[in-house]
Amino acid sequence: MIISSVDNPKIKYLCKLNKASFRKKEGKFIVEGKHLVKEARLKKILIEAYSIEEKEGYITVSDNVMKKITNTDTVVSEIGLCHMILKKELTDKLLILDSIQDPGNMGALMRSAKAFGFDTIVLGDGSVDIYNDKVIRSSQGAIFKLNFINAYLPDFIKSLNGYLVYGTDVVNGIPLEKVKKEAKIALVLGNEGNGISNEVKNVIEKNIYIPMDDTESLNVAVAGGIIMYELK
Amino acid sequence: MIISSVDNPKIKYLCKLNKASFRKKEGKFIVEGKHLVKEARLKKILIEAYSIEEKEGYITVSDNVMKKITNTDTVVSEIGLCHMILKKELTDKLLILDSIQDPGNMGALMRSAKAFGFDTIVLGDGSVDIYNDKVIRSSQGAIFKLNFINAYLPDFIKSLNGYLVYGTDVVNGIPLEKVKKEAKIALVLGNEGNGISNEVKNVIEKNIYIPMDDTESLNVAVAGGIIMYELK
Repeated sequence: MIISSVDNPKIKYLCKLNKASFRKKEGKFIVEGKHLVKEARLKKILIEAYSIEEKEGYITVSDNVMKKITNTDTVVSEIGLCHMILKKELTDKLLILDSIQDPGNMGALMRSAKAFGFDTIVLGDGSVDIYNDKVIRSSQGAIFKLNFINAYLPDFIKSLNGYLVYGTDVVNGIPLEKVKKEAKIALVLGNEGNGISNEVKNVIEKNIYIPMDDTESLNVAVAGGIIMYELK
Repeated sequence: MIISSVDNPKIKYLCKLNKASFRKKEGKFIVEGKHLVKEARLKKILIEAYSIEEKEGYITVSDNVMKKITNTDTVVSEIGLCHMILKKELTDKLLILDSIQDPGNMGALMRSAKAFGFDTIVLGDGSVDIYNDKVIRSSQGAIFKLNFINAYLPDFIKSLNGYLVYGTDVVNGIPLEKVKKEAKIALVLGNEGNGISNEVKNVIEKNIYIPMDDTESLNVAVAGGIIMYELK
């Protein structure tokens, strides 16, 4: 049986998951493409998979239904409905994100965090939803391999025990090559336009800067990537 | 006098510059915002500036005209019409881009290139136009400080003299921390999805890889940023 009506209750439910608020309420999100559906199945967070072809283990849907769910002009071959998993334990390296807004930057930061062992990402209130389709796409599967925590950042940072917490600041910082590589490090990155918010800055003791030539700042995903590479 | 008609010939001309092909034909492009207009004036590449407020040295336009030119819903306060300048001389460090498609990645790479002294960017045929409004926005002014060369990459790379040319490859590469820092280096980065094209790979002798943990690849702007930081 093929679901070809966009009014089918299952399909309506999936479409509603395009909204961050509904994803949060339901604790579910959608991934697109064979690679990510396979990863979700391996991670045991897949609830149901949908394909435009008849395949075992998949619910078949028509092209127009798939377009409606994924909100794209091109037809995605398959999607997966997944459970969110938010964990609480902390790894030795933390990446703390204070209002990262651009989905591409968020996805790129996830890839770098995973690559360099910053296996826990702590998200402040103002950050883009990590289950946003553009974030998932640009994270290239890193979303399945990381530990995410939502927190009010000033309290979270104050509660950390045994971590060296570094912010980034081009004015009052330690040059990156002189930063101590401790076993337990928390790196705080701020918003694309405004940097780290004042309330978060107030609870950070040390800052890092990347020496640069005739440039005010780097893209935040690039700066984060360089620092995590150096401190890995 | 305020230009308030979108049919004014000057305005029609500016609107046509939203197309890459027309920009190329005319050798002109538009920058948005006070900061970039000021930079363009300093660099002596500004032809005319337009503002929604009456100001000395600016042509005044109405809000609707400004929206039409910039193709945005919000009103940009001022824009500048600029000359493109393509130079031919090479600096000691070159960044060679083979089909970078995402405007955000291109802009981020420009910022990093400038920050780490890769002052010449060589663009192959398939790359996004550097005068695209999104590229200019994300380059944060770096576009004014770099030297750009358009070239057919295989021939360009073969013609280089005295440069150590590095590609990036996760399989057959030298780990980044072991790469020699020569005075004259050319770094080649490839397309977001497909990496460096085969015809370009064929003329590259050495490749770099960034050691990573359980991750297939980094975002290309992040990878480029890390390598340029290390080799600066």
